[in-house]
Amino acid sequence: MAKSKTKYVYFFGDGKAEGDTKMKALLGGKGANLAEMSSIGLPVPPGFTISTEACEAFQKAQKWPTGLADQVDKHLKRLENATGKTFGSGPEPLLVSVRSGAAVSMPGMMDTVLNLGLNDETRDAMIELTGNERFVWDAYRRFMQMFGDVVLGMEHEHFEEALQKVKDKHGAKLDTDLDVDGLKQVVAEYEKVYKRQKQTFPQNVKDQLRKSVDAVFGSWNNPRAIRYRELNDIRGLKGTAVNVQTMVFGNMGDDSGTGVAFTRDPSTGKNTFYGEFLMNAQGEDVVAGIRTPEPIADLRKHNRKVYKELREIRGKLEDHYRDMQDFEFTIERGTLYMLQTRTGKRTAVAAVKIAADMMKEGLIDEKESVLRLDPRQVDQLLHPWFDQDAEGKAQQVGKGLPASPGAATGRIVFNADDAEKQADDGKQVILCRIETSPEDIGGMHAAEGILTTRGGMTSHAAVVARGMGKCCVAGCGELTIDYKAKTLSADGKTFKEGEWISLNGTSGVVYAGKIDTVEPKLTGPFAELMKLSDKYRTLGVRTNADTPHDVDVAVRFGAEGIGLCRTEHMFFEGDRIVSMRKMILADDEDGRRKALAEIEPRQRDDFIGIFKALKGRPATIRLLDPPLHEFVPHDSEGQKQMAEAMGISVKKVRQKVDSLHEFNPMLGHRGCRLGIAYPEITAMQARAIVEAAYEVRGAKAEIMIPLVGNVKELAHQKRIVEQVIEEVKAANKGKKAPPIKIGTMIEVPRGAVTADAIAAEAEFFSFGTNDLTQMGCGFSRDDAGKFLKQYVEEGIYDADPFQSLDRDGVGELVRIAVEKGRSANKALKLGICGEHGGDPSSIAFCHEVGLDYVSCSPYRVPVARLAAAQAVIRHGDASKAARKSKKSSSKSATKTKKRSRKAGSKKSARKSAKKSAKKLSRKRSKKR
Amino acid sequence: MAKSKTKYVYFFGDGKAEGDTKMKALLGGKGANLAEMSSIGLPVPPGFTISTEACEAFQKAQKWPTGLADQVDKHLKRLENATGKTFGSGPEPLLVSVRSGAAVSMPGMMDTVLNLGLNDETRDAMIELTGNERFVWDAYRRFMQMFGDVVLGMEHEHFEEALQKVKDKHGAKLDTDLDVDGLKQVVAEYEKVYKRQKQTFPQNVKDQLRKSVDAVFGSWNNPRAIRYRELNDIRGLKGTAVNVQTMVFGNMGDDSGTGVAFTRDPSTGKNTFYGEFLMNAQGEDVVAGIRTPEPIADLRKHNRKVYKELREIRGKLEDHYRDMQDFEFTIERGTLYMLQTRTGKRTAVAAVKIAADMMKEGLIDEKESVLRLDPRQVDQLLHPWFDQDAEGKAQQVGKGLPASPGAATGRIVFNADDAEKQADDGKQVILCRIETSPEDIGGMHAAEGILTTRGGMTSHAAVVARGMGKCCVAGCGELTIDYKAKTLSADGKTFKEGEWISLNGTSGVVYAGKIDTVEPKLTGPFAELMKLSDKYRTLGVRTNADTPHDVDVAVRFGAEGIGLCRTEHMFFEGDRIVSMRKMILADDEDGRRKALAEIEPRQRDDFIGIFKALKGRPATIRLLDPPLHEFVPHDSEGQKQMAEAMGISVKKVRQKVDSLHEFNPMLGHRGCRLGIAYPEITAMQARAIVEAAYEVRGAKAEIMIPLVGNVKELAHQKRIVEQVIEEVKAANKGKKAPPIKIGTMIEVPRGAVTADAIAAEAEFFSFGTNDLTQMGCGFSRDDAGKFLKQYVEEGIYDADPFQSLDRDGVGELVRIAVEKGRSANKALKLGICGEHGGDPSSIAFCHEVGLDYVSCSPYRVPVARLAAAQAVIRHGDASKAARKSKKSSSKSATKTKKRSRKAGSKKSARKSAKKSAKKLSRKRSKKR
Repeated sequence: MAKSKTKYVYFFGDGKAEGDTKMKALLGGKGANLAEMSSIGLPVPPGFTISTEACEAFQKAQKWPTGLADQVDKHLKRLENATGKTFGSGPEPLLVSVRSGAAVSMPGMMDTVLNLGLNDETRDAMIELTGNERFVWDAYRRFMQMFGDVVLGMEHEHFEEALQKVKDKHGAKLDTDLDVDGLKQVVAEYEKVYKRQKQTFPQNVKDQLRKSVDAVFGSWNNPRAIRYRELNDIRGLKGTAVNVQTMVFGNMGDDSGTGVAFTRDPSTGKNTFYGEFLMNAQGEDVVAGIRTPEPIADLRKHNRKVYKELREIRGKLEDHYRDMQDFEFTIERGTLYMLQTRTGKRTAVAAVKIAADMMKEGLIDEKESVLRLDPRQVDQLLHPWFDQDAEGKAQQVGKGLPASPGAATGRIVFNADDAEKQADDGKQVILCRIETSPEDIGGMHAAEGILTTRGGMTSHAAVVARGMGKCCVAGCGELTIDYKAKTLSADGKTFKEGEWISLNGTSGVVYAGKIDTVEPKLTGPFAELMKLSDKYRTLGVRTNADTPHDVDVAVRFGAEGIGLCRTEHMFFEGDRIVSMRKMILADDEDGRRKALAEIEPRQRDDFIGIFKALKGRPATIRLLDPPLHEFVPHDSEGQKQMAEAMGISVKKVRQKVDSLHEFNPMLGHRGCRLGIAYPEITAMQARAIVEAAYEVRGAKAEIMIPLVGNVKELAHQKRIVEQVIEEVKAANKGKKAPPIKIGTMIEVPRGAVTADAIAAEAEFFSFGTNDLTQMGCGFSRDDAGKFLKQYVEEGIYDADPFQSLDRDGVGELVRIAVEKGRSANKALKLGICGEHGGDPSSIAFCHEVGLDYVSCSPYRVPVARLAAAQAVIRHGDASKAARKSKKSSSKSATKTKKRSRKAGSKKSARKSAKKSAKKLSRKRSKKR
Repeated sequence: MAKSKTKYVYFFGDGKAEGDTKMKALLGGKGANLAEMSSIGLPVPPGFTISTEACEAFQKAQKWPTGLADQVDKHLKRLENATGKTFGSGPEPLLVSVRSGAAVSMPGMMDTVLNLGLNDETRDAMIELTGNERFVWDAYRRFMQMFGDVVLGMEHEHFEEALQKVKDKHGAKLDTDLDVDGLKQVVAEYEKVYKRQKQTFPQNVKDQLRKSVDAVFGSWNNPRAIRYRELNDIRGLKGTAVNVQTMVFGNMGDDSGTGVAFTRDPSTGKNTFYGEFLMNAQGEDVVAGIRTPEPIADLRKHNRKVYKELREIRGKLEDHYRDMQDFEFTIERGTLYMLQTRTGKRTAVAAVKIAADMMKEGLIDEKESVLRLDPRQVDQLLHPWFDQDAEGKAQQVGKGLPASPGAATGRIVFNADDAEKQADDGKQVILCRIETSPEDIGGMHAAEGILTTRGGMTSHAAVVARGMGKCCVAGCGELTIDYKAKTLSADGKTFKEGEWISLNGTSGVVYAGKIDTVEPKLTGPFAELMKLSDKYRTLGVRTNADTPHDVDVAVRFGAEGIGLCRTEHMFFEGDRIVSMRKMILADDEDGRRKALAEIEPRQRDDFIGIFKALKGRPATIRLLDPPLHEFVPHDSEGQKQMAEAMGISVKKVRQKVDSLHEFNPMLGHRGCRLGIAYPEITAMQARAIVEAAYEVRGAKAEIMIPLVGNVKELAHQKRIVEQVIEEVKAANKGKKAPPIKIGTMIEVPRGAVTADAIAAEAEFFSFGTNDLTQMGCGFSRDDAGKFLKQYVEEGIYDADPFQSLDRDGVGELVRIAVEKGRSANKALKLGICGEHGGDPSSIAFCHEVGLDYVSCSPYRVPVARLAAAQAVIRHGDASKAARKSKKSSSKSATKTKKRSRKAGSKKSARKSAKKSAKKLSRKRSKKR
């Protein structure tokens, strides 16, 4: 067989590297950044990276691809040359770490092997070399354990038992209490463990390396890693790269140490050096949270020179990467080594502040600043906080580290499974753990907040919670957790599972009981970022709101109008339901008209309230949509009450309820089908809207006919609405007529594919993508839970199509409707009012396909503003391009995308981009 | 205002005419044919036709359009000149009839006024002129009555009471028993009726005419007319024309008469002169069935010359129209006049025979012959007939006229309302009436058959029943009906409402009780027509069949394979349901596999049976489709039995049943979603199919994955099926592998719009247009009854989209899928297996859009063969054109149609068409 020419291995070290930071897909984040750091002269222990392509090839063939072994050998040689050490022998043996590193950071997910290269021979050479017998034996037993656990898949309990046995024998409390003899005994015990498990600890160091690389490759598909990718929606990666790097030791004595730092505060975003370290420790010790580390500033006390060097590196990293970095370092006998850097995870608050500050500092321009906040994080900025009064009065039971900001209140649970189960049952829970581990990810996701009693700001719990935007108080040592008894104790007070506690992730305080929350406000750098977003975005952002209160909240968040005002609750509230039921029970139009007449003045008042709250912004109001059976009681008690209230027999009520039963209510008698069967409902609602619009100065009503699949349905309902408009106009002679538009939801697939016909009768379309997904995909939202989870897990759909718009399918229906609609009616206004209107990826789609606006729940308005701006920055002003396009081809999916990328952004955006580009000089102050 | 230049009035008479038979849309069928007959020299009383455009203008404005009055006046003058008579005065007063006549014949639906032009003055002149005082007074009182009833909307009871009063006074039994004095008294009484009803009988004859024309215009939208158009799916007409024609009288004595005739037997299609007449009677008397008329041959006895003349006219009409004609004539004092001709309605049997005979006679070519049978009529030829043995043993209770062939058995009902109600309840009923009237249409439609005790072969019941293809025995005078007692009596025996009777519409015999029926056979001219259809059609015709018996029937009818073999019953039959329920209750895959293993050999046997019956024809087999809850009992009794049979608790059964509940089962866990959740079901079915295919020589299996909306669903299931194929192949080493294709249903809208992706994985698509309609339009078939009726009535949909494919909407989805599918996979085979596959209009659509085949229920196969041939003859071979088309534009609806019309038919069809054209000379024998 011909030798493969593919380059699988990339060297770095000594101020040079074969890779760089742009090669993340190939080298993984860690590998690419090790190369980059090496290139810019940071002190990186030399090593090499095996590419993700090699991992991919391994996954397919379950063996190393042709050529990889040769390349690894060659690079080992190169590493020996660079370090002057030899692998597996010699007076200065080369020890390496083997670490995973995918293109996307997956903390704690992938496995690592340290101290590789140790065998009986090199162990002795190392003792000779370092003169530190204890350190070498400790390194040896650690390597044995890690190799057994990670590479050979032996249960780590076996090693822990063996270790405990020796510790007990020696009366040692901590591992560090063991002396050389003790460690030798541990090694002997570990050898027994290997024997019992019928495994061999390879003395051949190339075997060690090969098996370790295999294990890292294999860990790509371990259940934890798969679950992490699922939860974080990480797709399309080839695999993990493997970094083989010269070992440096933070545990060679008190002049050694290891730490993790951020170039800015990842919690608040403040421009301060932030981090933690442990002297005489290995890197894993900091992250694992076993010992509580010291704050970075205290490093000064241990080694002034190294601290100064670190501060300089901090500056270099930010100047180079132009973003906040999260890096790991090790000090080996007074010498500083950089082991990793990556873009630091941060809270939403920090993201906003860093983006704003870096723009002001000239590190990034406006566009980059807008791109720096993940719209999915915006939620964190909008989540309610504790009511200050309530928090003031609440009983404080402990204070830990403010690991991830925000406020959370919920019932205590003690393990991840319970958290998931109870959250599924709709309960709010706080996950309380001594410390968390990757196995807890699901439970952390399900919980409102996370509390740990051990670990620091960079412990697993803290890092993951920040990534999730979940409130977390970490390392709250005052509290004691008893997993068996299922209790949380603090200073004599004991909380049982199910009791309420509250966490303030910003202050680190833990409270007893439930604490009320208050609305967040849009101020400071976040408000600035929103303003900047508005400057760039071309998509309008409206809100789904049914009440003046909703409108107030949404307008405060920047909503430019209502995109969907549902009116069903206007038939339910108070005693309106009695009138509604009278209508349903009426035998003829006359009876229905009488009952509706009772509801009309109330609905008019509702609309007056909404128009007033909107202060001149437009409101798209959807006429009655749900089937009538939603307005009648289905239980016998309710039916009895209804019969009494109506003064009729229970039998009659039951008959009516039965007659309203539907096999598939989703596809039943609802939407405009009601208005066609009972035109008097449409007339009543239209009258209430139009009269309200006459009452409120500046009111702009857009009457929306739901569930139109056929232009004739719209025409039918439009006639009724237009007649009402004429009647109300006649009754308001002399008054200025308010602007009223008539349009429709596009939510039935037939509506989408006949949009040209419908557009001829409509002034606007609003895509009801919830129902369009239900009918387009044939998924009942109420039932699809049974199989959609599996569908997403197996990759049949990339994501739950109810959460993120299914671009290929439902999106194609939208695309067809946009093209056909605009082809028939150039003035047609297009929006979306499904829940996708608040989903960033779906918003980007709406922009690309050329909609005029999105509409979402009030709390999603800022998300939408940001996502809309990012869409322009990433794809250009596609909406214009799409609108100008005259070709209407059903194959335009890819075309639209290409076009939108080419299309320029709108004038103002383009202008300001130029300005920003000019400003973009490295004028960042050096005062840090 | 400027005078309108529109020509509204068209003259005919004296061997000339301004219109002709092609102008039916404008002049109505009657008017166009009066003009045509006049042109070809037949003795038509002169007159003129007011166009349907005038009617349309009248409907809009509710008044005569500008110019119409002038044109009517001018044509009245012309009529006076042509006849030498004067309208409303003079010694020879011009009397006219005013009759409606739409483009499509609507027998008995529209109103007629006769003897118009009579007033006090012309009455006296007519007495003077005819010397027949009684005749003139009778004509006068008839005109008064008709004008009051039809034009002024007075209840006809008032006139009948008045007439009865005078008859009683004079001891007259029949109207004809009244002498001049009596008739004068009737006129006096009628004048009182007018006065009491505050109406005026206009003495001004122009007023008479104007009001009558208005009434005819108005009758276009009377409820009977609307209902008739609905039932017969008559759309797109402008209105009715109005024919004003010189009166001729069949009731001027024994040398006068009137009749109705067909150029061939409309019941059997035999080439014999067929008709009825009454001497000394008006035309209405024949149709109304009050006196039983004489057969046409007996006219010889009354007037040899006129009979000879009529026979010659019969020949002229067929030569000219090249189709069987239904005509009306009147003999006035020995002179023959033609009052109407039209294409005669006929039974399906007659249609087939006439088409075949006329082709042989050289009157029409092959293509015309194929077009002559309405595919909707084919059903009649396929309906079961009485089992001859059973009929032989049955008790005959009477014999009437064989008015419309076929056999019917059902419960006796005595009025149309009851017929409709009971049919709605699923009962088979026979509508028994003394005679029928247009009000009975709905009931006739609902009944299995119609029995009348009065009236002839051209009575209302007979004509309408033949049109409907409904079995009818008419004029069975031996039977007596008592509407009040609700009894039918014959020779001492009395039948009550609800008792069973049976009708043989071919022999006219009525039987007591229910009679078993037998399958029809495809023989004689019908078989020839089918062969001819096969010669022309390009669409394949398959059948939906689940059992060998279905296959046998369908193959006899010409099916070329199975287009849809549903497999759900293969899980239900016998004790398989027990295994199926075990599978549903199983907790793990292992349990499910065990239960499925019990079903597998039985399904294999099922498929073996089907493959054998197919004798080498292909079978598209759909894997399990319905949701699992359809396989468990939902009532407590059934659940108890299931629990006992399974040996588990009722509670467990109930829990499982509850867990399977879905809110919208249509959009739930079904189709391939089952196969993805439980791959073992797919594997089991695939194994049963593939193993069966190995068993039967020539078996061709096409495995169809249902409910695919996403290509990845198909890919998932395909992998499983392919693996099974490999396994079975391995187990059958040395045996020739049967051809097995894998494809999918396109029934989810998402599947249609992503058909390009899906086609890359599929060898065939079968459009499941039932579900595509449900999801595309958002109509639950089980629930849509509530509003779809109104939708069709109001014209929102042209027809029930579940019966006739909705071309604009669902059709657009099909069109998109065809284009995208073929663009990605040129070899893709396309078919349809929804119930639309048996609907002629939908079949035409399938042809136009370029499908390869349709599939329908066995009894619909001949319908499909005929409809497919007609589609080629009408639209050309669109399938080829569509397949060649490389442009894939979603706007191609109209393009496809245009293209298909231009596209030539296939080679053989073109060749034979040329041959037929040559043969097409008027070589018809004169021997008739």
